[in-house]
Amino acid sequence: MKRAMSIKPASASAAQKARERVDSLVKPIGSLGRLEDYAVKLASIFGKTNLPPLKKAIAVFAADNGVWDEGISPVPQSVTAIQAVNMTKGITGVGVLAACAGADVFVYDMGIRNFSGHKGIEDKRVGNGTRSIARGPAMDIGQAIQAVTHGIDVAEELYDRGYRLLGCGEMGICNTTTSAAVLCALTGADPEETVGRGAGITDEQLEKKRSVVHTALEISRPDPDNTLEVLATVGGFDIAAMTGFFLGAAYKQVPVVIDGFISAVAALAAYRLNAAAVDYMFASHHSAEPGFDIAMEALGLKAPLQLNMRLGEGSGCPLMFAVLDGAAAMLTKMATFAEAQIDASKLVDIRES
Amino acid sequence: MKRAMSIKPASASAAQKARERVDSLVKPIGSLGRLEDYAVKLASIFGKTNLPPLKKAIAVFAADNGVWDEGISPVPQSVTAIQAVNMTKGITGVGVLAACAGADVFVYDMGIRNFSGHKGIEDKRVGNGTRSIARGPAMDIGQAIQAVTHGIDVAEELYDRGYRLLGCGEMGICNTTTSAAVLCALTGADPEETVGRGAGITDEQLEKKRSVVHTALEISRPDPDNTLEVLATVGGFDIAAMTGFFLGAAYKQVPVVIDGFISAVAALAAYRLNAAAVDYMFASHHSAEPGFDIAMEALGLKAPLQLNMRLGEGSGCPLMFAVLDGAAAMLTKMATFAEAQIDASKLVDIRES
Repeated sequence: MKRAMSIKPASASAAQKARERVDSLVKPIGSLGRLEDYAVKLASIFGKTNLPPLKKAIAVFAADNGVWDEGISPVPQSVTAIQAVNMTKGITGVGVLAACAGADVFVYDMGIRNFSGHKGIEDKRVGNGTRSIARGPAMDIGQAIQAVTHGIDVAEELYDRGYRLLGCGEMGICNTTTSAAVLCALTGADPEETVGRGAGITDEQLEKKRSVVHTALEISRPDPDNTLEVLATVGGFDIAAMTGFFLGAAYKQVPVVIDGFISAVAALAAYRLNAAAVDYMFASHHSAEPGFDIAMEALGLKAPLQLNMRLGEGSGCPLMFAVLDGAAAMLTKMATFAEAQIDASKLVDIRES
Repeated sequence: MKRAMSIKPASASAAQKARERVDSLVKPIGSLGRLEDYAVKLASIFGKTNLPPLKKAIAVFAADNGVWDEGISPVPQSVTAIQAVNMTKGITGVGVLAACAGADVFVYDMGIRNFSGHKGIEDKRVGNGTRSIARGPAMDIGQAIQAVTHGIDVAEELYDRGYRLLGCGEMGICNTTTSAAVLCALTGADPEETVGRGAGITDEQLEKKRSVVHTALEISRPDPDNTLEVLATVGGFDIAAMTGFFLGAAYKQVPVVIDGFISAVAALAAYRLNAAAVDYMFASHHSAEPGFDIAMEALGLKAPLQLNMRLGEGSGCPLMFAVLDGAAAMLTKMATFAEAQIDASKLVDIRES
């Protein structure tokens, strides 16, 4: 956790140099829109404007949630373990999309219930699944700290293996429920605004899911300013590990991509633990889950990909990797007006503020 | 033009098979959102559900517009030629972004003013720039047919060279003006709704640009149901060639990606010439130009990338190629529930209609 408190802000001077270079490139000023902003942000993260191709990885944190026992999901809990194993084979959504983007996928067992391990899944178990948030705290505060620490470790390990563009995802039946609860606890939002249909539930199940989140918040009443307490009482091992992963990426000063709703809630938890972490984050796709916008607004980020996706697993990250590759290539490889032999003195700057 | 009238509709039976396969893949039903729709559309285009990696090309059509003489743009007209040459070197926006996506860029001179040719730019000249749309027809109807035919030829040539995923773009100072005029003529929209700031103009220049479009429509009064007349009177060689390119891609039954505003207007013109062409089109980024939404609505398409881009050149196509690569890989490489050993019988379908 000491590392999480030692995050350096991204470089303002590199950002300024990058903005100057972007404005000198052979195109109308501002005409590459958000790609320009991403290029500037990447430059501020790496502290330079010349960006090489970035080695990419997605970390998937798998864990089970005790709240499944409340009967709020039609999906068998065993799917967490089965899909974690399938991810090691590259045959799930994140696997095929990551392969397209040239990204590697790593899977971590943070506490899949009754799981005895599998080749290609790294053991970072914090417990045998959490307890039901509808009956009391999901985990002890020590477990929350352990899960966050594991997440930081994973980011650091991937950095040490040469990865310079990270993303994260999760696998854990019922983790849209825990995410909604964490989001409510952190922001004061009502379960009506944050609880969605996740993988797919009926109207009746949706009502029950909302009521479970309501009950969890009533029972545990976590202090909104104590993020670790929020994660411990109404979160899950996966969300806590992702929170650590965002902090670890920022600590190692590498860009990290947010996937969907659960990932966005973990990013918000990381931001609450250390606001400097957001300097390293990029939103990807606009999740179909209703609470997603609340998390984005709290982070001050916007998700550029409108794909109506709600799979999780980190499946939105590879598509954003392609956008960030483009932004980095623009900054590094496009010619300037001078190089392109065009007099730019008459161009009008119509950027929106 | 005979080819443009011989476009086959995409395969409904392949689409159905693809949808069935998509719904059998190991993910909540509908959870990959628009990626699923894109996969189904690709399958309908290729008439099969097993899609190999697609060789990608972007065709850029460059031409000058006589309306530049009206003084509506601060950009020197010579920039059309300079940027066309720069595109052959891969140092403009589309070049660096295409390289990231593994796409090749081809540049065509449709009628750059006073341009004597350059290595890497294919000569498809229809005239030495158009006449000003504010003074009469931009070109003769014969030139419009020739430009459209060249565009069809280019798509066919790229097909013959093995390209199976196409995109197009343009380079031509003042072509947001001609595009706005074409869009007004085709849809009855008012210049207030379609004329934007393009590469960048002042309030005064914007007023003048609107008035020029108004005048062009007043003078030529093209028949909205005669698309060739619309292109000839208030269009440009670039827009006409792109119209042909969309028709040619559909004729050869390959997917083709729309870039920004100008590209979208050309796509609409193609659609008006043969409605079956839209079966082969994909929107990419949501252009910052105000008329873009009008063109998309008329086409019944949605652009998934919210990047606030307005560069043109085909620069939005490579980013969409990455999304389509992902969609194709999902359809072809993801495991089914049966393969993943998960009982999907309890899953709830919550797709939006």
